Amino acid sequence: MEGDLADSAPFAAPAAVAELEDGAALTPKFDADGLITAVATDAKSGDVLMVAHMNAQALAKTITTGEAWYFSRSRNALWKKGETSGHTQRVVEMRIDCDQDAVWMKVEQVAGACHTGRRSCFYRAVPLGTSEGQLRAAKLEFRDARTFDPKAAYGKTK
Amino acid sequence: MEGDLADSAPFAAPAAVAELEDGAALTPKFDADGLITAVATDAKSGDVLMVAHMNAQALAKTITTGEAWYFSRSRNALWKKGETSGHTQRVVEMRIDCDQDAVWMKVEQVAGACHTGRRSCFYRAVPLGTSEGQLRAAKLEFRDARTFDPKAAYGKTK
Repeated sequence: MEGDLADSAPFAAPAAVAELEDGAALTPKFDADGLITAVATDAKSGDVLMVAHMNAQALAKTITTGEAWYFSRSRNALWKKGETSGHTQRVVEMRIDCDQDAVWMKVEQVAGACHTGRRSCFYRAVPLGTSEGQLRAAKLEFRDARTFDPKAAYGKTK
Repeated sequence: MEGDLADSAPFAAPAAVAELEDGAALTPKFDADGLITAVATDAKSGDVLMVAHMNAQALAKTITTGEAWYFSRSRNALWKKGETSGHTQRVVEMRIDCDQDAVWMKVEQVAGACHTGRRSCFYRAVPLGTSEGQLRAAKLEFRDARTFDPKAAYGKTK
């Protein structure tokens, strides 16, 4: 773990809506918990690999290093993707959305993004057209098989 | 606006981690505000169009109707995408992630997803490799032009 950005608020403050949406200034709008949403897609296939959060430090480290950093809400900690598993994400392109509270990154993903051993965290499909009364019994369909052994990747000592 | 799902909790409750991640039961894990994150990508290009939130009703309506519904945090209201603009999203496929707190939808987007007039909300790129000291002065690069007139789309009376 590293959490040592010199400035804990390295970004300019959000502007009024017109500037936020149509200006060229990077002014990320962090929520009450200090977070924005981050979506990582596979730079080759376009598949969504994972959705997670970034605080200001994680966003700053991602921009400055070109490798994806996130903030874990459950562990309350800054986290470099691949820190334990080696499954890092090199950021090919980063986009920010209209109101600057979400980023989309196209990444080169080593091995797989998901801690369960799949390339993407989104390995199950939801059956569309299910009737309202059947939602509680809806069955997910597995679409992606495991591509690596999560115990080998995450169980090892750093 | 519609907000009239008969059952306000139409989904089964989240299970323990093993079942949540490796089971076939749809048990979405809503956060303290009753929301999950929803990412919509263009079914053809793979581009991320928007990131928003769904409450249980929005998720249920999306699954049952095959058209995207969201929950607006700012307006505190259930919201059908395209309700005002006509720029609806037909859901081609929906995936749910490992811990069932985010969904990814591949959609057929009418016109554009962004209220600013672009196809995607992610029309600006963040300059990677910017040094820490320059983050406050970082300039976004516009990558996508407007494809429709937002005043014509959103200004009209329903």
